[in-house]
Amino acid sequence: MAMQCSSFNYDLLCNDGDARRGRFQTVHGTVETPVFMPVGTQATVKAMSPQMLMQLKSQIILSNTYHLHMRPGADLIADLGGLHAFMAWNGPILTDSGGYQAFSLAKLMKINDEGLQFASHLDGSRHLLTPEKAVQIQEDLGSDIMMCLDECVAYPSTRQYVETSVKRTTLWADRCLQARQGSNALFGIIQGGIYPELRIRSAQEISSLGFDGIAIGGLSVGEGHDLMMDVLDVTMPHVPSGKPRYLMGVGTPKDIVEAVLRGVEMFDCVLPTRNARNGMLFTNKGRVTLKQARYKHDSSPPDEECTCYTCRNFSLAYLRHLYISREILGSILNTIHNLHFYLELMSDIRHSIQEKCFGDLRKKVKEMYDD
Amino acid sequence: MAMQCSSFNYDLLCNDGDARRGRFQTVHGTVETPVFMPVGTQATVKAMSPQMLMQLKSQIILSNTYHLHMRPGADLIADLGGLHAFMAWNGPILTDSGGYQAFSLAKLMKINDEGLQFASHLDGSRHLLTPEKAVQIQEDLGSDIMMCLDECVAYPSTRQYVETSVKRTTLWADRCLQARQGSNALFGIIQGGIYPELRIRSAQEISSLGFDGIAIGGLSVGEGHDLMMDVLDVTMPHVPSGKPRYLMGVGTPKDIVEAVLRGVEMFDCVLPTRNARNGMLFTNKGRVTLKQARYKHDSSPPDEECTCYTCRNFSLAYLRHLYISREILGSILNTIHNLHFYLELMSDIRHSIQEKCFGDLRKKVKEMYDD
Repeated sequence: MAMQCSSFNYDLLCNDGDARRGRFQTVHGTVETPVFMPVGTQATVKAMSPQMLMQLKSQIILSNTYHLHMRPGADLIADLGGLHAFMAWNGPILTDSGGYQAFSLAKLMKINDEGLQFASHLDGSRHLLTPEKAVQIQEDLGSDIMMCLDECVAYPSTRQYVETSVKRTTLWADRCLQARQGSNALFGIIQGGIYPELRIRSAQEISSLGFDGIAIGGLSVGEGHDLMMDVLDVTMPHVPSGKPRYLMGVGTPKDIVEAVLRGVEMFDCVLPTRNARNGMLFTNKGRVTLKQARYKHDSSPPDEECTCYTCRNFSLAYLRHLYISREILGSILNTIHNLHFYLELMSDIRHSIQEKCFGDLRKKVKEMYDD
Repeated sequence: MAMQCSSFNYDLLCNDGDARRGRFQTVHGTVETPVFMPVGTQATVKAMSPQMLMQLKSQIILSNTYHLHMRPGADLIADLGGLHAFMAWNGPILTDSGGYQAFSLAKLMKINDEGLQFASHLDGSRHLLTPEKAVQIQEDLGSDIMMCLDECVAYPSTRQYVETSVKRTTLWADRCLQARQGSNALFGIIQGGIYPELRIRSAQEISSLGFDGIAIGGLSVGEGHDLMMDVLDVTMPHVPSGKPRYLMGVGTPKDIVEAVLRGVEMFDCVLPTRNARNGMLFTNKGRVTLKQARYKHDSSPPDEECTCYTCRNFSLAYLRHLYISREILGSILNTIHNLHFYLELMSDIRHSIQEKCFGDLRKKVKEMYDD
């Protein structure tokens, strides 16, 4: 079982302070960083068709291995030609390892160095997820970027427990690399909770292995924005410069610009899509909550400056009506707008790094989104 | 209060037996008949954006006055520029009178010659719907084709009750015509239950008034396909030739071809859209029920012959996965397919009437859809 090298290729193009603008290639296309990846949990970004995602210029999406493994099954997807063919998305796909949902969504039965035993949230069936299995499932899916199985600890956790999990995460990282059969890219994940020395240790161990990119995991689990930034401050100096850095499951516009400031280049989060379905829009003037009566007669679009399909065609009054009436089109139009907002923010970030004026953009975003 | 004439204009283009191919003009565009109108109950065809409806070549849609009057209110929609602007649909819109939902969905309190008293299904608020009010609401909405308030009786109903309702429907029809202020088209509605002489009487009375089109109401309420056709057989000879004929709330593919055979030109029904959300697809090989396990590994599209976005890109296995997983994209893709099927069927019907081979198409549809 020989260790394979991936065809993944990353270039750091320029920087503005620690903020980095890069580019990586996958067989399904090139990705410009910093990048936001819409989340397609069950082989679909909720309320979006692949055509809509293309129109929004989504460069890459994320899909969840746990969900796909439970239903319809990675073997079925492999039989049907892989995840790209199954969901008719021809751009790059990053998949997580399945570990996070095995902790957070399934009923976790046992965890030891071998792997995770859990019971499915759908039917209670028992499963064992090992580092080798996590890689195999992701290879079955045909993921462009696979993630290592790691142990994402809860917040707060004792230093002793986090130390054990860091050790296990490194052990599993190595086994994931050994298990890789194909040329799919594989990213390692740094853990370490909120303990600086454990973060540094994990960063050094993970960075010493032959990964295509480095992720920072175990954040956005309740520690709050300031602690998250503290962890990035101590961790990022120990991440190699020649690889893309991915902050998993993050975040708000403020989280994103502050993480970019610290050298992060990749993000994923359900916030724009989930909030859309809950009637909350991100705009250039801050958040809009559609259930508020103030929008009942409002003939203006959510965002006068926005060029998305929703803002070019529909009023706040109509979007409020759809939300109140629980109409599917409300979820569609709100998701289009929120993803457009996030993807435009990333485009603005890339441009500002290139033009060495990222600080101005950061200030503007922080004024608009203080939380 | 002077009676106004509408700018509505209908031409009978050709026929194949009693099957008619026609065309009518509205200020929002031309409609080729026979036509199917997707139902946009709450100012949205469920799971569709106006852009998708345009791509599907929907010529005209229907919206429900009762629902819009209850929420968000016709006055609010009027303030925002009318229904076309509100929902960003620039094609023609037909609205019903609100009477049917006042019977079927709201709690009906009282009905007499004045109008209908009912309590809203949303908040229990009391409303009085008169013929004059029904026209005023539809004019507020800016409907291209308004429908008269009528009394749609349940099936079965006694001859005596139906006779009273026919008399009231004619009385109301006349009052609707008198109440019209603008140039919106107005259609009369024939009632009469399943009683031939009452249907004939109603047809004669409604046809004698100055309507732009004639609808057949009170069908598809449980009487079944054969009785529905019996009613059309006795009614249609008494409908004037120079106006479009609209069979309200119908129906299945078989209902539609059999009604076209008898001279009907306009249809609306929730079947393609509602069934889509329930995982049922209309195809050229009959119905497909996605929950069936037989489709779990099926890599073929729902319909090999179909050119819709769904069939060009997705497998039955994927659509089944979306349905089982209750994903919004399932409703979107299934609705695209079913509306495409219905709209293509109507296009085929128009073509076959032109080519004098409607009988062949009718036979093919009846073989595929026997119920």
